[in-house]
Amino acid sequence: MRVWTLLGQLYNEKGGQVNSVDLLYCCCGCFVFPGFHYRKFTQLPHLAGTEQNLKYAEQIKKEWQEFGLDSVEMVPYDVLLSYPNKSQPNYISIVDHLGNEVFNTSLAEPIPDGYENISDIVPPYSAFSAKGQPEGDLVYVNYGRTEDFFQLQREMGINVTGKIVIVRYGKIFRGNKVKNAMLAGAQGIIMFSDPADYWAADVQPYPDGWNLPGGGAQRGNVLNLNGAGDPLTPGYPAKEYTYRFGLEDGVGLPKIPVHPIGFHDAIHLLKNMGGEIPPNNWKGALNVSYRIGPGFTNDFKSQKVRMNIHTNNQVTRIYNVIGRIRGAQEPDRYVILGGHRDAWVFGGIDPMSGAAVVHEIVRSAGKLLSKGWRPRRTIIFASWDAEEFGLLGSTEWAEDNAKLLQERAVAYINADSSIEGMYTLRVDCTPSLHTLVYNITKQIASPEDGEEEVSLYESWHKKDNWTDDRDAPRISKLGSGSDFEAYFIRLGIAAGRARYTKNKKTERYSSYPVYHSVYETFEIVEKFYDPSFRRLWAVAQVRGGLIFQLADSPLLPLDANEYADSLRKYTQSIKQLAQRHQDKMEIYKVSFDSLLSAVQNFTVAARDFHERLKTHNREDSLQVRIVNDQLMYLERAFIDPLGLPGRPFYRHVIFAPSSHNKYAGESFPGIYDALFDIENSADPEKSWEEVKRQISIAAFTVHAAAMTLTPPA
Amino acid sequence: MRVWTLLGQLYNEKGGQVNSVDLLYCCCGCFVFPGFHYRKFTQLPHLAGTEQNLKYAEQIKKEWQEFGLDSVEMVPYDVLLSYPNKSQPNYISIVDHLGNEVFNTSLAEPIPDGYENISDIVPPYSAFSAKGQPEGDLVYVNYGRTEDFFQLQREMGINVTGKIVIVRYGKIFRGNKVKNAMLAGAQGIIMFSDPADYWAADVQPYPDGWNLPGGGAQRGNVLNLNGAGDPLTPGYPAKEYTYRFGLEDGVGLPKIPVHPIGFHDAIHLLKNMGGEIPPNNWKGALNVSYRIGPGFTNDFKSQKVRMNIHTNNQVTRIYNVIGRIRGAQEPDRYVILGGHRDAWVFGGIDPMSGAAVVHEIVRSAGKLLSKGWRPRRTIIFASWDAEEFGLLGSTEWAEDNAKLLQERAVAYINADSSIEGMYTLRVDCTPSLHTLVYNITKQIASPEDGEEEVSLYESWHKKDNWTDDRDAPRISKLGSGSDFEAYFIRLGIAAGRARYTKNKKTERYSSYPVYHSVYETFEIVEKFYDPSFRRLWAVAQVRGGLIFQLADSPLLPLDANEYADSLRKYTQSIKQLAQRHQDKMEIYKVSFDSLLSAVQNFTVAARDFHERLKTHNREDSLQVRIVNDQLMYLERAFIDPLGLPGRPFYRHVIFAPSSHNKYAGESFPGIYDALFDIENSADPEKSWEEVKRQISIAAFTVHAAAMTLTPPA
Repeated sequence: MRVWTLLGQLYNEKGGQVNSVDLLYCCCGCFVFPGFHYRKFTQLPHLAGTEQNLKYAEQIKKEWQEFGLDSVEMVPYDVLLSYPNKSQPNYISIVDHLGNEVFNTSLAEPIPDGYENISDIVPPYSAFSAKGQPEGDLVYVNYGRTEDFFQLQREMGINVTGKIVIVRYGKIFRGNKVKNAMLAGAQGIIMFSDPADYWAADVQPYPDGWNLPGGGAQRGNVLNLNGAGDPLTPGYPAKEYTYRFGLEDGVGLPKIPVHPIGFHDAIHLLKNMGGEIPPNNWKGALNVSYRIGPGFTNDFKSQKVRMNIHTNNQVTRIYNVIGRIRGAQEPDRYVILGGHRDAWVFGGIDPMSGAAVVHEIVRSAGKLLSKGWRPRRTIIFASWDAEEFGLLGSTEWAEDNAKLLQERAVAYINADSSIEGMYTLRVDCTPSLHTLVYNITKQIASPEDGEEEVSLYESWHKKDNWTDDRDAPRISKLGSGSDFEAYFIRLGIAAGRARYTKNKKTERYSSYPVYHSVYETFEIVEKFYDPSFRRLWAVAQVRGGLIFQLADSPLLPLDANEYADSLRKYTQSIKQLAQRHQDKMEIYKVSFDSLLSAVQNFTVAARDFHERLKTHNREDSLQVRIVNDQLMYLERAFIDPLGLPGRPFYRHVIFAPSSHNKYAGESFPGIYDALFDIENSADPEKSWEEVKRQISIAAFTVHAAAMTLTPPA
Repeated sequence: MRVWTLLGQLYNEKGGQVNSVDLLYCCCGCFVFPGFHYRKFTQLPHLAGTEQNLKYAEQIKKEWQEFGLDSVEMVPYDVLLSYPNKSQPNYISIVDHLGNEVFNTSLAEPIPDGYENISDIVPPYSAFSAKGQPEGDLVYVNYGRTEDFFQLQREMGINVTGKIVIVRYGKIFRGNKVKNAMLAGAQGIIMFSDPADYWAADVQPYPDGWNLPGGGAQRGNVLNLNGAGDPLTPGYPAKEYTYRFGLEDGVGLPKIPVHPIGFHDAIHLLKNMGGEIPPNNWKGALNVSYRIGPGFTNDFKSQKVRMNIHTNNQVTRIYNVIGRIRGAQEPDRYVILGGHRDAWVFGGIDPMSGAAVVHEIVRSAGKLLSKGWRPRRTIIFASWDAEEFGLLGSTEWAEDNAKLLQERAVAYINADSSIEGMYTLRVDCTPSLHTLVYNITKQIASPEDGEEEVSLYESWHKKDNWTDDRDAPRISKLGSGSDFEAYFIRLGIAAGRARYTKNKKTERYSSYPVYHSVYETFEIVEKFYDPSFRRLWAVAQVRGGLIFQLADSPLLPLDANEYADSLRKYTQSIKQLAQRHQDKMEIYKVSFDSLLSAVQNFTVAARDFHERLKTHNREDSLQVRIVNDQLMYLERAFIDPLGLPGRPFYRHVIFAPSSHNKYAGESFPGIYDALFDIENSADPEKSWEEVKRQISIAAFTVHAAAMTLTPPA
């Protein structure tokens, strides 16, 4: 409550427009993030498509209206979701030669204290798994990454055709693991959480600490949507009247059964495995030898593994909540803050630690509105549904509003989980937002104990410096795996995300241990991750600061020079990758000169643009709009409507989710993918021709983007 | 000369901004179009890629600079062109059973008087024909339209596999004829100009009249590019660094030899043909029976037809000339006037009757500039190259500047041939330009003798009323076949074209008789089509008026209500087409309700938008910009980045060139193509599913376009 009250006071003292930098500065460190809403929205499971998630949507709508937004609406779509069959549970068995089940994996996670009476906790499952009961020998393939399968097939000479693959969770998006298993010919895939990846040293399992209990398992969708949104309506919003493909033509649906298990269960599947002992980097932390298989040791040779998967795909109504503050001067310029609401279970971290932040920002903004403030541009707040099922709510809304967004959207700030660790800030964003992120974090207090006089920027900088060549806190490329994807990668809207994270140098586990388990509760944050909520508050200040500045600064705080710097870096990096094949580059006459020249062009255009800005007439609102349009459309200029090869909805030429790990961002993805594993190409000439084509596309796109920064006539 | 002088005077008298409506009004009928430039640019052949066409480009550049444009530049691209082999002429033979050539078609057209000493007249050929010397029996297939091939195959039971097809020119774009012949399995195709289609009654052949001499033939490209531009660089500008496909992967290149002939030659090929006598609508006006074949009558059974085609494809540099007038208030808003410069020979009609108009408009604008006038928005003038080879210059420039144009282009006005007949005005444009076209033509004097007191609008209206349900001159949909294509169909920029045309009710011939022959001279216009140049002047006033009004009106003169009217009409029309299959629509549950509802939505949104405009604050330049942006982006809203099925560069959901005739515009092309010949579908269920999918896409797109017209926040 104190947040908005003091924001309101600030407004009154100044007697006019609020400068959001002042606002953030004045608020630094003085406040505690109010946990009231956060607790409220984490008490009940609220899986996408369930009644409870609709109830939360209605509650959010009502409260946003009460907070004073100009409008709040529920926006439904009918998308393909996937749920376990309630009468036929999913599990995995070891069966003997008679077909008897001699071991079955658990059907649910042990419920944490205090939640025993909660119904509707969906058991761990892989959403959109194919149905089926495949039976066969297990093959262990480490993390199931492309390189793991290459090693398995090329070095170890093991063919998984007709086998059931077992891989540990971690390193990459689970959907990529499933795709790799399918491509390799497996008839099923089991994913388990290994303590090596989901267990921090000297930490107790939940509820005594924040580690994953052995009975916990990671839910999650196993789609390979490549940005399509609803699998049945790619490219178009899933409205009532929308044409739907049949399931057989659905985008990204796996064709094999998939199931997740915890490490207590995994031990039973792994302990008797036969075959070779793998290299050390394939070994997890369980007390088993991590033999590769296929199948069990001689003593258990007759035993097979059977998956029992009965999960159903089902077209289901979901609800986004969309709130707006109409811009005073430029109602047709949109600054968007969006994060999802749906959770696998309680959503204690994912997503409600983020959704609560959005709620607080809406409340602050509403209070300011009530005092007479109104931002220059329109602010849109979104509570997305069905993120966990493939970013569906956000992608459908992006499809629905694509034409408006292309023309009008200034920036999209994502608000998924606010916290995944206790160490420092983590920001992934488009290069043009770098400067704004630094400026804002310099005006926010560090939330860490003993750093009362230190800014978030300094604290972050000390803990995570960029690289040797730049003295600033590290900011990473955007990958995917959250709702900014359609806005950034498909539509070319400047985007960013911020959260509090772990120390990646010392904390080797993947994500946070209880990720997508029933143990993601409000209490795990309140007790361990952020007892004072000061880290959440810092994240709120970053996200809110970005939104307020982008919505209210007369001149858009986007920096083309930073884009130029990043493009130079990415170009060097992709060139170095290609130069590992110097001989082939000569044979096939592959050159990066055109791209280098384009980036040089862009660098000059960006520098000159910002030079001109210094003397630009800021009194003439039309002239300011013209340069703002150049800044706004800069990100759009990197969009190629033809998309990346085989990925028509990934249209950003500079950034895409890696083809091998949706979570990671790849720069110059077209060139990267063309170069990938090119040494093993069956038709090297054709492959190198594709490299050349991709370099040409990248060079053209960067040239074209540079043109958008030159004087418009 | 008098044009700009008087425009200048007008400006001075008013002592300020020129209102282009006044300008046009005051100029009505008082002037004679100056033929000086027109004559100058039609004296020498200037085929794309030749030295002479570059010389004209340089001259145009120089003169535009002298006229006072702010900038003029030459913009080169390296595109695939196609020329006859100079040492191996193309021709068609009748060969006897020993293989001796007993008849050969002529190698060139007789040169018209006064041009005997001109070299570099390219003989009639089909640009991009495959090379080859196929030999076989002829089959006559009328105009080579889809319906002609259907009739041939389905009703007459004739298979053309391995045959050489002969078709008459006319009705549809020649590239579609070639595609149809290829699909039917022909090994070559000959196209001839039949007097029924290229000969007006009571008119002498050139030079004594404007009919096509028997030795004349129609040049032209036979590509099926579907908007791709340069066949080797689809989607990207053909710059030096651009990756080029190999010819085998080139877009739209025919795989069979193709050749055009005149009717003197055609008689020899047709006269001895055997087989059935065709229905009357397959018969032309030659003194032959138009038998279908295959092959010759019994007496000549052993004779075959052999095509000898040695045409070469060649990557060649072309040059656009781009001139600009920087907008005073909104330099980042572009109004484009573009027309091509390249001609098959002299370009007496196509394109120089249009290019001369552009030249005059540039000169007028330059003079106004020198008096201190400057338009509100930027005007771009373009002299395109290689239009005749597939709209290449304009499409490459559109690709090169796509990002700028998407963001900034208000409208594109095309300036190909100004005259194709002597009857009245012909306008094809996007619906939102209807009102502006009517307003402008009301302020232009009729160029017709005896109509001194009559406006162009009245004259036009009297001669070509729209339909029974609307009392206004007819305006048609845009098809393709000229340089507006990439701007309108790919990028979604409001576009239009205007020229003087024939009386289509009484003049049944296709295009104008000498089209693409050596007889297209300056003199044919000066002597027959427009001796006073008043028709050209009227066309100049329409084109120039559109440009000046679009560039200078504070509020953009685009009318969303007209778009709504057209959408309603198109929806009724496509629904009626589908309802021919009422039974199937019931079986497969096909409904147009979603589209009807979307169009209703759009109608309301458009009406409300224009209602709000009446009370809109026109003093606040930022607020005017906001509504102008809605008007500008309305056309863009109809673009689907996924394109039409199989035609990725045709992205406009409301309009596309017909799949069966590039020249014609089809509304709701996705639905139309899905319905086409559906009664003969091998898989009716799948075909009707595609109809439903296309209705859904159309409904979504119209809904989305309607949203762009609602208040932006």
